[in-house]
Formats: sequence, C-alpha cells, structure tokens
Amino acid sequence: MKAVVLLSGGLDSTTALYAARREGDRPICLSIHYGQLHERELESAKRIASALRLEHWMIPLSLPWGGSALTDPQISVPKGRNESEISKEIPATYVPARNSIFLSLAASLAETQGAEAIYFGANALDYSGYPDCRPEFIEAFEAMIARGTKVGALRPLRIVAPLLRLSKAEIVCLGAQLGVPFEMTWSCYEGGEFPCGGCDSCVLRAKGFREAGMEDPLLGTAPRN
Amino acid sequence: MKAVVLLSGGLDSTTALYAARREGDRPICLSIHYGQLHERELESAKRIASALRLEHWMIPLSLPWGGSALTDPQISVPKGRNESEISKEIPATYVPARNSIFLSLAASLAETQGAEAIYFGANALDYSGYPDCRPEFIEAFEAMIARGTKVGALRPLRIVAPLLRLSKAEIVCLGAQLGVPFEMTWSCYEGGEFPCGGCDSCVLRAKGFREAGMEDPLLGTAPRN
Repeated sequence: MKAVVLLSGGLDSTTALYAARREGDRPICLSIHYGQLHERELESAKRIASALRLEHWMIPLSLPWGGSALTDPQISVPKGRNESEISKEIPATYVPARNSIFLSLAASLAETQGAEAIYFGANALDYSGYPDCRPEFIEAFEAMIARGTKVGALRPLRIVAPLLRLSKAEIVCLGAQLGVPFEMTWSCYEGGEFPCGGCDSCVLRAKGFREAGMEDPLLGTAPRN
Repeated sequence: MKAVVLLSGGLDSTTALYAARREGDRPICLSIHYGQLHERELESAKRIASALRLEHWMIPLSLPWGGSALTDPQISVPKGRNESEISKEIPATYVPARNSIFLSLAASLAETQGAEAIYFGANALDYSGYPDCRPEFIEAFEAMIARGTKVGALRPLRIVAPLLRLSKAEIVCLGAQLGVPFEMTWSCYEGGEFPCGGCDSCVLRAKGFREAGMEDPLLGTAPRN
C-alpha cells in the first residue's frame, strides 16, 4: 500500500512514519514550511527522510495572516506551564485551521501519486489542546475528503493516526520498538540550537520519556546548565 | 457580518463576491496563485477587488506534484466538447483536492480575522464535473471545519455557496442584477490574451450568456475571427 506521511520532524510524526514503514511499503513524506519560527524541525524531517532514502516533498506555504505564536514573533510561546496546565484550553501555539490545510495538501499529493492512506501523527492524549488533533476532527476530515476528491468515489483515502489514543509515554515506547532515531527528531517550539525545555512541546516530550523510564537522547546534545 | 470570499477572478466567484457584498458587509477577498496556467484570472481578481476597494489577500501555493491540466503543461486542456459532453466524467482540469485546500486556507484567514462565513462560487448545475463543487462536499467541509478550528466550538464557520443550485444562465442573470462587471472577469482555462472559446469553461460561460439572452461583454474585447 502506498501512503503519504505528514512529517514535521517531531517525535510524533517521526513515530507515525516508522509505523507506516512497518506496514511494509515505502511511504512518501510531505513536510510543509509554513513560516514556523521553529523551522529547525524541517532540518530534522529532511535528515530523517534522507536517512531512510524516502521520497520527500517539502513545500512552502504562505500563511501571512499570522494568528499563532508559532508563526508570529509578536505572540509569545507559552513557557513554564506544567503538564496539568497544558490541554486545559487551546493555546497560543494553535495555528488556525493548520491541520485541515496540511491534510488537504497531503490528500492532493496522495491522489496524484495513487496513495491509499495518509499517516498523521496527531494524538489526543497528552497533547496541547488543539482541536485539529481530535478523533472527531479526523473522522470528519476523512468524510469530507471522500467527497472532495476524484479518487474518493472509488476508494476513499484513509487517514491513519496511529498515535491518536496513545499517551506520550506510549508513543516513546512504540518509537523505541520501531527504532525511531529520537536524537534526530525535534519537538521544541523555539527556534534555538537546543530544546528550550520550557515550552508545552518540550514539557510533554519530557513527561513521555520520564513516564516511559527512558532517557531522551536529544537532551544529551545540549550543554549542561 | 465579516466574510472571506474565495475570488479566482472568474464569472462565478465574482458573482459570489457581489452576493456577499449585498449582505451589507465588506468582504475580505482571498485569491490563490497555485501555478494555474491561466494565471491571467488573478489579474482579474486583483482589478475587481481593487475597483471595490476591498481587502485582498493573494497567496502563492506550491502544488509541485501536478496531476491536472490546469497546472501541468504536459496535460492538455480538453477542447471542443459540447455542453452535453461536459460533466459526464471528472475532466483533466480537475486539480486534486484543490477546493479542500482553498477552503481550508480561507478558514484559516476567516478564523484569524474573526469572519463568520466563507463565500465560495461553486455551482453544481452546468459545472465541469468536479467532485469538490457538489453540495455533499460543501456540507462535509462545513462539518469538518467546525471540528478543526478554535472558533468552530463556539460559532462554526458557514460555507456560503450562493450559486450552488443555479444554472449558468441564472448565474449570469444574478450577476447582471448585482452589477457584476462581466468584462473584468476571466473564465478561460487557457492563458491567452483572449478567451479561447473552446475549453469547457468558455463553453459553459457562452451557454450561460446565450440562455440568459445576454451578450458577454468580455467577448467584445476579442478580435473577430
């Protein structure tokens, strides 16, 4: 089966990529440069796809209207929130309609290439409160794209979200089983040389490794404070 | 009410824009340069939005995987088909998942700007057989975007398709009533200086004007054969 994988270069999408590979076919990777201030993640995506010798599409996407801490330097990335404070409400790092846009682009690529599925690293437990990472969104997207594509009438595209109901610790365990090179992934929302440790994404990643009883090899690359 | 209008510069989207204006508020126009070979239509969009002094976002979108006669010069635009041959099947001018991408981008802009609706010039009668112009697609999109946005939980975005169940002749009549400057619109799929007269879009436009008993002022600009 041919599949497109939305690959940001983070822990979740890289684990989704490895889950797709387990299905036996060569995934087609799609990464999107949408003006994220942490474009460092795309370097990771490039290295990961290249290490696996996979077809990799990287496309630029202009979202000049801002509205998110991930794309607008005037809006601060929330820092120093603990795990119980995250997910209570939709955070400033939400990018309006981002996953609808990304999955639509992936559907366009999938239809053109004859792929039958799109792998998407969303997870609805231990996530950051994004509406477009929830099961009800993914189901609705699948129904929409079945009606909005040529291929949909014959063989609807499946949206596969293998991490959807896993905790971050379970994602780390699955990644370890599948051989995900954690040290090559990038989760931090800040664009620095090393993970900041304080943004929601760093906090959730740390929680995942801690609860899985593993060390995050990426942190071995940072200088000690 | 604030609304985003997807404006390609064609007859249908311009009529949808004028229908939005009738609702009393100043629409926000969104045009997308997706590598269409008939990018001439975007000149029309620009002139139309500028004549009305409307806010106008024009964004570039890279769809490098081709798969359509509208974006890939290697695939021919069907020519010389008569009205009864059009709509029988999905034509080569279908762009994979295009309207899912466009509406998702419009939803992102709408959410950022606090708009409550997206106007979309799709029509399901006298159209070109595109799956993503049908009522069942639009309903499914509306359901999807309600779940995939922050605003969706509070006040779902409405997708308004005022032309959906109109024939081309009815669109021409509505446009005339609303004062649409037909001579400024561009429908032809070819990128020439004058409409080709033979592509599906030209054939359907001509049928609309003929059945409405009106002359297309755009054709007055072409040299006589």
